[in-house]
Parts: sequence; structure tokens; C-alpha cells
Amino acid sequence: MTVKAYGAHAGDQPLQPLDITRRAPGVHDVQIAIACCGVCHSDIHQVRSEWAGTLYPCVPGHEIVGRVTAVGAHVSKHKIGDLVGVGCIVDSCQHCADCNEGLENYCAQMVGTYNGSTPDAPGHTLGGYSQQIVVHERYVLRICHPEAQLAAVAPLLCAGITTYSPLRHWKVGKGHKVGVVGIGGLGHMGIKLANAMGAHVVAFTTSPSKREAAKALGAHEVVVSRNADEMAAHAKSLDFILDTVAAPHDLDAFFALLKRDGTMTLVGAPASPHPSPEVFSLIMKRRSLAGSMIGGIPETQEMLDFCAEHGIVADVEMIRAGQINDAYERMLKGDVKYRFVIDCASLAA
Amino acid sequence: MTVKAYGAHAGDQPLQPLDITRRAPGVHDVQIAIACCGVCHSDIHQVRSEWAGTLYPCVPGHEIVGRVTAVGAHVSKHKIGDLVGVGCIVDSCQHCADCNEGLENYCAQMVGTYNGSTPDAPGHTLGGYSQQIVVHERYVLRICHPEAQLAAVAPLLCAGITTYSPLRHWKVGKGHKVGVVGIGGLGHMGIKLANAMGAHVVAFTTSPSKREAAKALGAHEVVVSRNADEMAAHAKSLDFILDTVAAPHDLDAFFALLKRDGTMTLVGAPASPHPSPEVFSLIMKRRSLAGSMIGGIPETQEMLDFCAEHGIVADVEMIRAGQINDAYERMLKGDVKYRFVIDCASLAA
Repeated sequence: MTVKAYGAHAGDQPLQPLDITRRAPGVHDVQIAIACCGVCHSDIHQVRSEWAGTLYPCVPGHEIVGRVTAVGAHVSKHKIGDLVGVGCIVDSCQHCADCNEGLENYCAQMVGTYNGSTPDAPGHTLGGYSQQIVVHERYVLRICHPEAQLAAVAPLLCAGITTYSPLRHWKVGKGHKVGVVGIGGLGHMGIKLANAMGAHVVAFTTSPSKREAAKALGAHEVVVSRNADEMAAHAKSLDFILDTVAAPHDLDAFFALLKRDGTMTLVGAPASPHPSPEVFSLIMKRRSLAGSMIGGIPETQEMLDFCAEHGIVADVEMIRAGQINDAYERMLKGDVKYRFVIDCASLAA
Repeated sequence: MTVKAYGAHAGDQPLQPLDITRRAPGVHDVQIAIACCGVCHSDIHQVRSEWAGTLYPCVPGHEIVGRVTAVGAHVSKHKIGDLVGVGCIVDSCQHCADCNEGLENYCAQMVGTYNGSTPDAPGHTLGGYSQQIVVHERYVLRICHPEAQLAAVAPLLCAGITTYSPLRHWKVGKGHKVGVVGIGGLGHMGIKLANAMGAHVVAFTTSPSKREAAKALGAHEVVVSRNADEMAAHAKSLDFILDTVAAPHDLDAFFALLKRDGTMTLVGAPASPHPSPEVFSLIMKRRSLAGSMIGGIPETQEMLDFCAEHGIVADVEMIRAGQINDAYERMLKGDVKYRFVIDCASLAA
């Protein structure tokens, strides 16, 4: 089936309307009419070939929400008419230790929602900036939020799970003091989620102008990280830091805020490494620097259910597909609160 | 009391004989006639002022073994004639959360065995390259090894606990595949200890000539880390890596060998940072880079008892105090298997 999409033919070209082909649903597949798709910073990196190996045409988008329009004969998880989501993963080997533990995100054969390897034309996966997508039921999530919130749910599929998973893995909860570095697409979700998990949340930003906004999102305290006195007031007091900033920055300043045995987990992926942390920053208090990549399918479902229960959605600005190139420029300037979401109905125009 | 010692008056001067003063034992103090003192790479860094803040005269040495010659009125742990050891710590606040958990090594007021703050003359602590030392009983360890092994026990007080503590903290044991990077003073202990804990031990060295020696120490496999094929054979297979190398080196090559959720812990403290690890090395498999610093007093006692039970000592080369400057030069060339130990009886000459 041919559907309308938005994508790029090369890394130095703007995104433009494209016609792409979706496979007919197989016996385990779910066909989804895409209502909205969130716009992730990874989309920009990939479509502009800032990471290695971008395949063209490139159709980004891995924060997909919509409604089921057809299901294969063996599909049991979803039925026609269901509200569903698709995140960063559309396939994996389904039999390795990672897959068996529901950590498909760490499977060596994980297939990304765009730029992944697939037998479907054109040989690589095409993402959610499109009218429809066909995905194996294992990678399709149930959405319990009201339909009116669908656009604001879309970013949960990447920004939500990317922050939820490390907060859960490092057991953040009541009695913990948790830092969230960066108040953007990922960070604003990290603040909401850590707050809902019961932690005392300290948001870190380079922008004094974001102070009130961070509090409105659920931060109990806000620190301007360029202010040494504000930073020093939190020395050796944090149990965990979630660092969402995808630009290279000084990590030692944040290590100094961690207690003994504290962990700082990176979820942003800068194009070049951070300045190297001092070994003493780690050794002196047995601290750890970790990384975490999105989350597995069962945990993504858990996150969506947690968010529905706690009334959590992303703060979004809706755009038409034709505004995507301008939206990218605004994202690069930090001019979005906090996630653009494409109204995929606009693709029909 | 005036005792003979070996130390330096400035960072650019060789070590030489010195007379130093030890306090009379207080009510909680143990006075120890030092039999031997191990020579740690930290001694060189400190005495040469390669780390900030060296105070002179500097008498290094924090791998001290000897016999109790006097005890204060309130001392209950030790008595005259006992074989005892003193490691890197001779005091701490004794009431913070770290001290209360027996993690005096992470106490903000921890006092190092040399170059630490003390009311005793000359205002900073003087270490084990000396005939006697007086230490609060809390920081004095019981030695259960036979007296004939005393010299080979000395390095356990720093090299032993520095490697034992992270192996225990990250729960290394049967069924684990563990890497030990560097086969020097720390690394040779790491290999012995990880083996005794039941792990499958892979030693990593830049020197093909160390292959057989590493196996003799207890490594089940030895990898020459400059050989990409040998490294690739262990890709994504290690649960834990103990990195003992105190010179800046590529960490990414080792991250690639860790399984999902694996940790690489640094115990070497280079004078300048390692090349910055790629963020993707951490993110892709939820890996961690951690640091660990020596160990607390209860764990040091546990380590000494574990080593006595398993017949573990360090491999040492005995020297007279007058050979210390030559020994430093040999250490900097890696020409020691694996630890120099000063026969402190030689100080009397």
C-alpha cells in the first residue's frame, strides 16, 4: 500500500513530501492509521546523517500514536479500533536473553522504527512521519489515556520511556533526592516522572528563564548550573542524576553533587564525547557514570499505564507536516515547550 | 619518641634518612614496631607532588605490618605482641553515616596514613617508611597469616583491599566472567582475589611477556589488549571489569567487552583523565563506569581473614630502605613482580 510521508533524500536536503510503501499486514502484524508523531532530537541527527549510516530516503519518527485499522490472523494483543502506540523498536530477534527478559532495546538485532534493516522496500524501515505503519504486534503498545490526549501521549513512546526506564532501573522513589539535567523533551518528562515516583526532584538548567517552568513541571528545586554557589548548595546530596543533555558538557560539576554510591545516567547522545570526567570524581565516593537506552516493550507498557494512572502526558506543540523543517530549526535553538508533535492528518493535504 | 624514617624534603629531591617524632600512645592508641612496609604507586605520586597538596617532609608508606609494642588504657581490640597491620587510613570523624557503616574510606574527614591532617608534629601524618607508628585502635587490623609471611601480607593493606572491595561490592563470584586490566601491584592481587571468589578471570595486559605469569597468578585466560582479535573474542561477555591501570588509556575498548548491565570499575588514579569514553559505549548496553577507593576498616579485616583462609599473599621483592629511590625508578619501568616491600629493620642501620 502506498501512503504519504515526509522525509529527506539526503542529509543536506530539507524534508519534503514522499510516497512510501507499507507491507500488507502479516499474520502477526498490526496496521495502524497514524494520528500523530512526536519529533525527537534523534530524528534530526539521523535525517541529517550526524550519526553514521543513515539510509535514504529517510522518514524519521518513533513517537507514534494512532488507531488499529487491520490485524493479522494470529494477532491477540490488539484489535481493530484500539488506540495504540509504537516507539523506537519495531522488531528484534525475539529469542535472545535480552528479548526473553523483555529488554528488546538491548537485543543485538533490534530494528529501529526508522533506518533499521527490513526485507520491506526500500530495505530499511521508515518511521512515523507518515499516514500508516505496519508493525509486529509484540512492538505495539496499548494506550489507556483518553483519545483527546493522544497527541500529548505520543512523546511518551520515546521521551517518556527513555527517562522512565533509568528512573526505575536505579530504583528512584520516596526518600530519594534526584537531579534531572536539562529541561527539554527528555528532561521535562524526567521531572514529571521522578515527581510522580515520589522523589524530591532538583532540576538543573543553564537558563535562569526556565526556573518557573521547571517548577510547574514538578521540580521541587531548580538550580542554574552555571551558578557555582547554587551548585555547591547541593554538594554530595543527590542519590541519582538523570542527565538528558545531548550536547557535550562538564560532568564533574554534577558528580560533585552525588552522594557516595550515587549514579549519574546519561540518556542524551551527543555527536562528540563529553569532556572526560576526572577519575577522582568517581573514585572518591564510589560513584558511577552509566548510560541507558530507551526501554523494553513490557516496561514501555508499564510506563504508559503509569502515566495514564497519574495523568501524565508530555507538553506539546502541534504542527502540520509541512512545518517540520522550521520545527527542526526551532528545536536546535531550544525554542519548543517541550515537544513538537506532527498532526499526521496534515499529510493528506 | 624519635624514630628513624625515610622520606623527602621536596618533590624534586630523592628520599633520604630522616628522624621523625611519634606521639606517646593515647588511651585508644596502639604503638606498632613496623616490620615491613609495602611500596605503592601512590607513594611516588605523593612524594613527588604529582597530586596536589603534598606536605614536606613527606614520609610515604601505607602498607604497614608489624607487632604491637604498647597499647593505651582503653584499647580492647589489640594487645602487646599481636601481629597487626595499618593501611591507608589512620583516622576519620567516627560519627558520620560513612563511618557508622564502616566505610571510613569515604568519610569526608578521613585522615590518610601519610600527608593527612593531624595535631601531631609536624602537622601532617607520616607513613610507614619508618620504625614505629602510633594509630588509634579502630584503624589497626588483626593479621592471622603466619609471621613468616608478614612481608607478603603488607601489600594486602592497600593493593589487597583496593581490589577486594570493588570485587565484593559488585558481587563477583561463581558464574561470573571478570576482567582484570593491568598486571601490576593492584592487578596481581585482583587476579588472585577474583579467582579465589570463584570467578572466571580474564587478565588484560599490554605485554605479551606477562601471559604465563598472569596464568600462574590465577587468570584462566590472558588477553593482550593491543591485539584486536584477542579483544574481539571476548566481546559483550564480561560481567565486570576491574581496571587497575593508573595511566590514561582507551576505555571504550574495554566497554565493548562488557555484557548488558556490566560495570567497569577504576581503581587506578592517573594524573590526567583517560580519553573520554563514547557515550554510546555506556548507553547501548546500559553499562556503567565506576570508581572505588581502598575500602573500609571492617572490610579490610574481612579481606585479611579471607586471604589468610585462602592462603593468599602478594608476590613481593624485599628491599632495604636505602634502595627506595632505585625501587621507584624500577616501578616506573614496570620492573617489579609485583610489589616492593621495605624491610624496616634496615632503617636502624
